[in-house]
Amino acid sequence: MGKLLIVGTVAFDEIETPFGKTDKILGGAATFIGLAASQFENESAIVSIVGDDLPKEYLDLLENKNIDISGIEIVKGGKTFYWKGKYHNDLNSRDTLATELNTLADFNPRVPEKFKDADVVMLGNLHPGVQLSVINQMSKRPKLIVLDTMNFWMDNALDDLKEVIKHIDVITINDEEARQLTNEYSLVKAAEEIQKMGPKYVVIKKGEHGALLFHDEKVFFAPALPLEEVFDPTGAGDTFAGGFAGYLAATSGVSFGNLKNAVIHGSNLASFCVERFGTKRMQDLKREEVNQRLHQFKTLTQFDIELR
Amino acid sequence: MGKLLIVGTVAFDEIETPFGKTDKILGGAATFIGLAASQFENESAIVSIVGDDLPKEYLDLLENKNIDISGIEIVKGGKTFYWKGKYHNDLNSRDTLATELNTLADFNPRVPEKFKDADVVMLGNLHPGVQLSVINQMSKRPKLIVLDTMNFWMDNALDDLKEVIKHIDVITINDEEARQLTNEYSLVKAAEEIQKMGPKYVVIKKGEHGALLFHDEKVFFAPALPLEEVFDPTGAGDTFAGGFAGYLAATSGVSFGNLKNAVIHGSNLASFCVERFGTKRMQDLKREEVNQRLHQFKTLTQFDIELR
Repeated sequence: MGKLLIVGTVAFDEIETPFGKTDKILGGAATFIGLAASQFENESAIVSIVGDDLPKEYLDLLENKNIDISGIEIVKGGKTFYWKGKYHNDLNSRDTLATELNTLADFNPRVPEKFKDADVVMLGNLHPGVQLSVINQMSKRPKLIVLDTMNFWMDNALDDLKEVIKHIDVITINDEEARQLTNEYSLVKAAEEIQKMGPKYVVIKKGEHGALLFHDEKVFFAPALPLEEVFDPTGAGDTFAGGFAGYLAATSGVSFGNLKNAVIHGSNLASFCVERFGTKRMQDLKREEVNQRLHQFKTLTQFDIELR
Repeated sequence: MGKLLIVGTVAFDEIETPFGKTDKILGGAATFIGLAASQFENESAIVSIVGDDLPKEYLDLLENKNIDISGIEIVKGGKTFYWKGKYHNDLNSRDTLATELNTLADFNPRVPEKFKDADVVMLGNLHPGVQLSVINQMSKRPKLIVLDTMNFWMDNALDDLKEVIKHIDVITINDEEARQLTNEYSLVKAAEEIQKMGPKYVVIKKGEHGALLFHDEKVFFAPALPLEEVFDPTGAGDTFAGGFAGYLAATSGVSFGNLKNAVIHGSNLASFCVERFGTKRMQDLKREEVNQRLHQFKTLTQFDIELR
């Protein structure tokens, strides 16, 4: 049981996959992170910004998961961040059809007083300057600051990104982005280079190919669960991050062994996220389903070789 | 300790990677399979065909690994199968610059009398008709027949391929080929479909992303070891197959648990193969190096989550 502060978008997504399409539905990094993290016993809060066009039921949904939403600024007459995308047939790539920043363009995050001493801060993918502003508002150094980012910020705000990652403990990033950030093709070398930039732990997300955790000379790998159907990958990375951060806030141990477990919990929750459009699967996900699939993860990866 | 029969090419490879290029060097599926399998205590034999242009030292190299080469036909005045390829910068894809079948065009495999009762038969990538001919020469049903194949035979000899896979126990195949063979995008579904065609066990090779083992409802995943340097991927899949088959011949247990271990041993050996050009790394690979890296595999994947 810890205190978890989540910063990121609460947004409208409009999604097309080979299996169907949606209207504007609830999305956003902080939404997925919050829903995943709600699987663990924590006090959680989201810091974000939306317009008053966001249906009240979306915010109710988050509040019903015991997430403090007092840090979600609602701009009167403003419009909520909107993303529209279409996935290709293999679901591994997508085209962005529309991005409207709207209220997000002027996001000036305000951390609620009660969460300025959070144990874990999960900085969802946002402008690195916004991420840094949140760190600077904390009244004490959190036990763990986790940051997610993407290539967009490497292309457009690299100096700001390099500044904020000096101050964090864990970065989650995908394989191509790790290569871009370091000019190293080998993920082992890329992770070494990123550790020199600040974060002691590097999580490299490889989508359907799993995730790698690096720390000093140590490396741990968690596969993605092989699924019969992947329906919509939207939010899988954020769900991973939410499970990862939520587990660490709840257990508060910052050992490599505990971070390994956090990677497994993150991968486990992400495997549910992709089974339905948007947040649908995560909204009503039962603890028993989660536990059952953890057993599958164990069966999937554990072996017993006599080592000489 | 068992008897292992290996069928496949012994060949000349000429390779270019971003790190350098070779002249004509020793290659071929049976070569890599044999070298990997020689890490285990077995009686092994290779059935293949070459021309008398193949340097005697190459055959000596195999014999020195205690591989019976009496089943390698040497065609007087004939030329050995030759492949030339160039890898792209990411090492995940390559262009074939030349393929000369030469003596392989008329390969009529002859299983040595002594190996007609082999425990394990490892059919390297070859025309499926040739693979079937080997099965038909066995004096008793082997405990395990493992077959490797590729998309070329799906495009050019699909009926023959479907016939031979009716008679085997394990197929090793890469992810794209599994999809092509079944028209299923989900690897879980593809593995289900392939099991209906004959093999009780399906191994899907994903290169740098590891390998999956499927049997009935069971699935097991082994990652590829994250390496600082991948130098030349040539032969990695065959090395995997050789470690897999060699371990199973030596231990003779055909349980899912033992096949899991075989997948780990195969992945472990493949991680060495890619560190040097061609067979170089596998020629002088020490037992201690292999064991040490097995420990790394365990550290890489084993976790300890309290399951509820």
